[in-house]
Amino acid sequence: MPSARAFVAPSASEPLSASTIERRATGPNDVEIEILFCGVCHSDLHTARDEWEVWPTVYPCVPGHEIVGRVRKAGGNVRSFKEGDLAAVGCMVDSCGTCPSCSESLEQYCETGSTVFTYNSPDPHETTPVTYGGYSESIVVDERFVLRVPENLDPAAAAPLLCAGITLYSPLRHWQAGPGKKVGIVGLGGLGHMGVKLSHALGAETVLFTRSATKAEEGKRLGADAVVVSKNDDEMQAQAGSFDLIVSTVAVSHNLDPYISLLKRDGTLVLVGAPEHPHPSPTVFNLILGRRSLAGSAIGGIAETQEMLDFCAERGIASDIELIPVQKINDAYSRLLQGDVKYRFVIDMKSLQ
Amino acid sequence: MPSARAFVAPSASEPLSASTIERRATGPNDVEIEILFCGVCHSDLHTARDEWEVWPTVYPCVPGHEIVGRVRKAGGNVRSFKEGDLAAVGCMVDSCGTCPSCSESLEQYCETGSTVFTYNSPDPHETTPVTYGGYSESIVVDERFVLRVPENLDPAAAAPLLCAGITLYSPLRHWQAGPGKKVGIVGLGGLGHMGVKLSHALGAETVLFTRSATKAEEGKRLGADAVVVSKNDDEMQAQAGSFDLIVSTVAVSHNLDPYISLLKRDGTLVLVGAPEHPHPSPTVFNLILGRRSLAGSAIGGIAETQEMLDFCAERGIASDIELIPVQKINDAYSRLLQGDVKYRFVIDMKSLQ
Repeated sequence: MPSARAFVAPSASEPLSASTIERRATGPNDVEIEILFCGVCHSDLHTARDEWEVWPTVYPCVPGHEIVGRVRKAGGNVRSFKEGDLAAVGCMVDSCGTCPSCSESLEQYCETGSTVFTYNSPDPHETTPVTYGGYSESIVVDERFVLRVPENLDPAAAAPLLCAGITLYSPLRHWQAGPGKKVGIVGLGGLGHMGVKLSHALGAETVLFTRSATKAEEGKRLGADAVVVSKNDDEMQAQAGSFDLIVSTVAVSHNLDPYISLLKRDGTLVLVGAPEHPHPSPTVFNLILGRRSLAGSAIGGIAETQEMLDFCAERGIASDIELIPVQKINDAYSRLLQGDVKYRFVIDMKSLQ
Repeated sequence: MPSARAFVAPSASEPLSASTIERRATGPNDVEIEILFCGVCHSDLHTARDEWEVWPTVYPCVPGHEIVGRVRKAGGNVRSFKEGDLAAVGCMVDSCGTCPSCSESLEQYCETGSTVFTYNSPDPHETTPVTYGGYSESIVVDERFVLRVPENLDPAAAAPLLCAGITLYSPLRHWQAGPGKKVGIVGLGGLGHMGVKLSHALGAETVLFTRSATKAEEGKRLGADAVVVSKNDDEMQAQAGSFDLIVSTVAVSHNLDPYISLLKRDGTLVLVGAPEHPHPSPTVFNLILGRRSLAGSAIGGIAETQEMLDFCAERGIASDIELIPVQKINDAYSRLLQGDVKYRFVIDMKSLQ
């Protein structure tokens, strides 16, 4: 069995450290990718530390689902990739392929529950107990779950598009952000900063909601037409009933009513993060009086992820990143918890050697 | 000022009793209607007893917003009605007429907050402190808020269409209930029984959710393809992920998660009633994993109410009613609280004389 160097969480309480993992041999439908860069997502940290009750972590754990690299080998049946191509892998590496959602390339909603996530999912190939992610020198993935990365995208800054980017792009497209629409993005972190850039690039009037007035300049630099300090009731009131769509990237419990009140008739508040403790129950009158909706959205399908990468390449959009060697990952996790990153850590995988 | 006999709540704690109220003189744009029948809505009871904190009752209070009658007089500018026509008035009698929602005939969502409800709204004509509803021998309403009632509809059974009917018809239409769609209706009361009839008539596969197994026969008689006892976990589980739309008519606090779990990807749970105490907070994962929505809907606009009346006339749909003399209204309120009516009380207004 081929092996690969990786950075691994040996248990919930130990720091990540260098190790060696197994990868499956490259099959006829597989693409073997030499990983150049891997973004650092909050989910990596939650999984490394076994913080999700509904989804216990199997150790050793190799996080990482914002993967960009070069094709090292393409299986005999592979048509879309050849050696040397810039390629990417996001949050998923397989699904049933035949249910209604998979048939529409919405593999994240696979209705047979067969979505295989890039790490900590039972490995259908049984190479390893669970799938191992991108904190590694290489990965082997079925062609259907490998994305093409346009050569004009900076591969390091493109890595976070594979999770943070698509998680915002998908709801913005689904709820038709574009010219003539007013869109709010709540929170300015890894997800939120991509939301502001993408909503602006899609042509929507874009408003950033943040708790901190100090982020106003940053918000505007990233593309926001206006920045509203969510703690300021007057600023919030001034926006009442004016939004077609608000996407909240805030994954801690918070009162949704102030945002629902800002929606127009038929507007939607979309949650892309699930809080550990439930949000206070939203006021039903707020939904009824304006036919408003509260919805959720999960990452995006493979076809839409490709569309997003092509869109970003065309518009020159990528993530604002801080590049780190893999040896700094435990520090990076600490800083992530303090919100001390603008706006995404990306691991330079050369550092593994 | 013209006067009219009416049944009136003198205060929150007294029973309704006969009285006389003032009505404005019929202006050039007005239609004066001799009321034949008036449906009895839960809102009537809440308002008569001043049970809505957000909307205090001004006394004397004349409830009633499911009104069917004959045109007694039409003002000089009125084009759509003439003396003797069967006509109806629902929950609204005026709105700003010019905001985006009013321009789309969604007057219930008037964005200037100028919707004038049929009772207990400040009277813009200042004839009376607040508007007086349909428990009365006559009413004077601007032509724009008067509906045509097809002569082949039973006028008594048509009365509840003006609130219960449109409250279900509007979300069913907005969320595209029809052939190929699976629709759930939660609760079998005044609203729910109209939901089952209308969803079935629109061509959707229709499932009634009820807490009581004894209602299965009734549900099927009204048009349900299946009846699910919501207390039975196995019956609920068997429906998981299968609904395009569920409309809940239950206005008491209840757990929404079991219904959200029954939605397909992109499905919507619509609430048409606001509970006195909030529902338990819906689980965010349930929304995210399936891009599901929780929404609200309020009655329907005037154009859509007319469409609904025409649709009901064409399909022979009306409410199942129990006709009562107005003198029985206090009894009817008691029975309403016990759910002891199939499915709507309608007052025969002849009894006022």
